Amino acid sequence: MATPTFDRLALVGVGLLGGSIGKGLKQRGLVSHVAGVGHRASSLDAALACGAIDKATTHLEEVIPSADLIVICTPALLIPDVLDRVRPLLKPGAAVTDVGSTKAHICAHAAATWPAPRRFVGSHPMAGSEKFGPEHSDPGLFVNAVCLLESSPEADPAARARIAALWASLGARVVDMDPVHHDRLVAHSSHIPHILSALIATIAARQEGLGPVIGNGFRDMTRIAAGRPAIWRDIALSNRDAILEGLEEAAEELAQFKRALEANDAAAVEAYFEAGRAAREKALQ
Amino acid sequence: MATPTFDRLALVGVGLLGGSIGKGLKQRGLVSHVAGVGHRASSLDAALACGAIDKATTHLEEVIPSADLIVICTPALLIPDVLDRVRPLLKPGAAVTDVGSTKAHICAHAAATWPAPRRFVGSHPMAGSEKFGPEHSDPGLFVNAVCLLESSPEADPAARARIAALWASLGARVVDMDPVHHDRLVAHSSHIPHILSALIATIAARQEGLGPVIGNGFRDMTRIAAGRPAIWRDIALSNRDAILEGLEEAAEELAQFKRALEANDAAAVEAYFEAGRAAREKALQ
Repeated sequence: MATPTFDRLALVGVGLLGGSIGKGLKQRGLVSHVAGVGHRASSLDAALACGAIDKATTHLEEVIPSADLIVICTPALLIPDVLDRVRPLLKPGAAVTDVGSTKAHICAHAAATWPAPRRFVGSHPMAGSEKFGPEHSDPGLFVNAVCLLESSPEADPAARARIAALWASLGARVVDMDPVHHDRLVAHSSHIPHILSALIATIAARQEGLGPVIGNGFRDMTRIAAGRPAIWRDIALSNRDAILEGLEEAAEELAQFKRALEANDAAAVEAYFEAGRAAREKALQ
Repeated sequence: MATPTFDRLALVGVGLLGGSIGKGLKQRGLVSHVAGVGHRASSLDAALACGAIDKATTHLEEVIPSADLIVICTPALLIPDVLDRVRPLLKPGAAVTDVGSTKAHICAHAAATWPAPRRFVGSHPMAGSEKFGPEHSDPGLFVNAVCLLESSPEADPAARARIAALWASLGARVVDMDPVHHDRLVAHSSHIPHILSALIATIAARQEGLGPVIGNGFRDMTRIAAGRPAIWRDIALSNRDAILEGLEEAAEELAQFKRALEANDAAAVEAYFEAGRAAREKALQ
């Protein structure tokens, strides 16, 4: 496959991810012009200053009509609304994607509002950082990352190919996935671990004098709880059903373990740990 | 404080920890003779072969009566029984400790069976490895580790000082702690995180196609679930009360989070993550 070239790119939202897309395409010489749309002047200025975008504006109308490729990089909960505002402004043939880390609510909204063949195809590039803001954007952020791409029969094949080429050209490995399946998987690989990480920290910190007994296990298990609460609030709300389903399962497993331990049932307690060990091995295969 | 010298050391159990104590004292020239008691010839042979012990036997009677310092390094659940068998064999002035990672059941047993002033003082050196067996023992294993030492008014001060000197001479930082408080703290810093790590792996592995969505968060959160199930069975059984108390708290927190998410209560969901973030910061201070 020849290296694809993108003409005019519009980024809606110029944080870490949007900035990294802009820088990544510009530094590789794969795009002729990058416009950034945002509502905070400070972010737009920072994105301009670090070379992630060529033009900054607070008005979608100024850049969407001339864009060939639009990437929505706002927080996930806002994406359906942004889609509604972007859709009437698109020029024929333009392709639209997003970077939301949950997909079912976004893709369902697009499917319900967009005539087929749909030129929006949802993406979830699995790359990020503890840092945020365009000043930390990195043209290599997506190198070797996985990018999950909505597998939808209603998607326009040309738009889909263009969006897949976008991620591939930034160094990511594109994997097709059904949005509902996607959300269930990320609930288990990321959201429920995050919820339990916060839980471990919260109940442990109620104990006085914890300091001397903290080891690497505790550090590992609470590392992700350091994430930004507002981001995780939005992720949880946007993946509510899959998370609730997973938490139900978690509560049942935990109750079963509690009963085994209460009963001093050594075989059942060992089986629980053995299941966890085997499951980890299977998951990381 | 001058460097302490130990004359005759007996290790009951010659795995990773026992072997590391033997090697650590021998390589520092702090002990005149190290005897190892075990019931598996293969472990005793390996401990001899790697220089962790000078003499190997399967009979406590052969080495305890001449030992000045005895360290019990068997699995925690066996320690009360080993104490019962060691106590009648001790020579006057000998000091006894252990390396069990739970303390309340061991120290309560010692308190109930040992006349005051007690020459057994429980230890929990917080060092270890994924590896096990004397062939992986390491004379530097305890360097910069914390060793929790039972703070009991019935303990003989001379025995206590000797045991504290043992750990300090191996490079550990000794911290006094009440055994019941100890067990509650390690339930939160280690045992409950382990139980939840296994839980995350178990429910995640039920999903098909998880591979592409696994990231560092999942790896971190399930790392400790790779531990040996039989060891964790014993730890859980030996710290049953503190773990059940912590799991009760965990279940309540989780149920509260579920209700907030079910109700789309954004403020309560954010408060949950904020509490986790703040708690981690406080715990790691």
